[in-house]
Amino acid sequence: MRRTVFFVSDGTGITAETLGHTLLTQFDQIEYRERTLPFVDTIEKADATVAYINETGRSDRCRPIVFCTLVNPACQAAVATSEALVVDFFNAFIGPLEEEFRRTSSHTKGRSHGMVNKATYYFRIDAINFALQHDDGASVQHYREADVILVGVSRSGKTPTCLYLAMQFGVRAANYPLNPDEDGSETLPEVLRPHRERLYGLTVNPERLQQIRSERRPGTRYASLGQCRREVEEVEVLFRKHALMYVNTDTMSVEEIAAQILHERQMERRLY
Amino acid sequence: MRRTVFFVSDGTGITAETLGHTLLTQFDQIEYRERTLPFVDTIEKADATVAYINETGRSDRCRPIVFCTLVNPACQAAVATSEALVVDFFNAFIGPLEEEFRRTSSHTKGRSHGMVNKATYYFRIDAINFALQHDDGASVQHYREADVILVGVSRSGKTPTCLYLAMQFGVRAANYPLNPDEDGSETLPEVLRPHRERLYGLTVNPERLQQIRSERRPGTRYASLGQCRREVEEVEVLFRKHALMYVNTDTMSVEEIAAQILHERQMERRLY
Repeated sequence: MRRTVFFVSDGTGITAETLGHTLLTQFDQIEYRERTLPFVDTIEKADATVAYINETGRSDRCRPIVFCTLVNPACQAAVATSEALVVDFFNAFIGPLEEEFRRTSSHTKGRSHGMVNKATYYFRIDAINFALQHDDGASVQHYREADVILVGVSRSGKTPTCLYLAMQFGVRAANYPLNPDEDGSETLPEVLRPHRERLYGLTVNPERLQQIRSERRPGTRYASLGQCRREVEEVEVLFRKHALMYVNTDTMSVEEIAAQILHERQMERRLY
Repeated sequence: MRRTVFFVSDGTGITAETLGHTLLTQFDQIEYRERTLPFVDTIEKADATVAYINETGRSDRCRPIVFCTLVNPACQAAVATSEALVVDFFNAFIGPLEEEFRRTSSHTKGRSHGMVNKATYYFRIDAINFALQHDDGASVQHYREADVILVGVSRSGKTPTCLYLAMQFGVRAANYPLNPDEDGSETLPEVLRPHRERLYGLTVNPERLQQIRSERRPGTRYASLGQCRREVEEVEVLFRKHALMYVNTDTMSVEEIAAQILHERQMERRLY
């Protein structure tokens, strides 16, 4: 017996997934498989979706769960007839909001942020380009325009964090690799010194760093536990000596690292 | 009079924002400003949050709205006492799910996807590295390992879409710039020919392309409407001639483009 969880949306399905995952993480030991059904934007597609959900439930011999973000009332009503447990996001909350705003909602397909608004689009693209141009110390030319410059040893999570900061918040994030073996643990690389107030350190437990590096270059000195230990120890000395903010990313997702940096540094975001 | 909308979370606040934005897009003409209050993970912080929300409401002379994803019952209860309209995502749905699963939920802080699960983390990093290495035709070496290769003229949205596909879905996405002026409109660049089944075209209205290019290089031939028209027309001829799937990204967010490609190509995602 295995349960199927559906995410049903008239758009990308990302909101339905976000909602569903947030709730499902509260139930550790439940096993299920996931199916996202995006772009369900006609009554015909809604009916087909219901048929598919019911069929799946019968062959699973287990009642499906449906996280639903449809805005069209006819489509909502169709999905509500399914044999699944339907968690209907709009139905639950749109009423109180309509009352508070003293308006009826548009009941038309929602737009995710990004390209909708021109200014928003440019902030996002600009921030992504900035992150790409200033990845891994590739260019240090526009560091004065950086909202933050992430520093840390190789494979400590700098690149994905910069890209996420750009994509989600429109923040201009550069990153620069620290190499304590070459630079010594006591001194900040010269290019970073004028930008001390922009720096933010990432660190990670040596055991985890070893795992990550071993995926990339197994059996090398670079991936050895001794080397990872030495490097981590030395950058942490450096972070403390220069009183940099830093975070150990060991048990954090990229989203969590990015949100924490934004929060701790009280950075102005350009995207909502 | 201006209303403040709060997103209150014990984690990053990203889920509260995603869910709140989805509901607010249903109310076109409502004006408000946004405040995200992340990492509210103690009762003291919850109490301080309530005080701040109430103060804001009084100085706004308008009842705040709070989108809340707190899981701790004591923190939830504190926020529920605020003078705001509180939209509590957990409280609304956790009950029916507990009943369906016949289990109580953990009521502990949720984890966003990413680094939590080791396999998940590697898929994501691997996909991001793949996107970076294969951005803008930089390398064509591992095209056989690509899940999709986006093609289109300069500034048609290829890079952000590839990065989003990697970050959100763990999909390996390369991209290659088409330059109809140089390559001619009838022929696919030679490096792409063995990979026809992996190609997916992005196109955009010439007027929008002109705007985007003008931000980057104003007043150049590259950014002129005539040039944009010619290039767009020629790549669309090329897409049709080679029967490529393609999409006009004109009114779409990066999220929407990525989700549509995943859906249309029935690609296997590696991240949930």
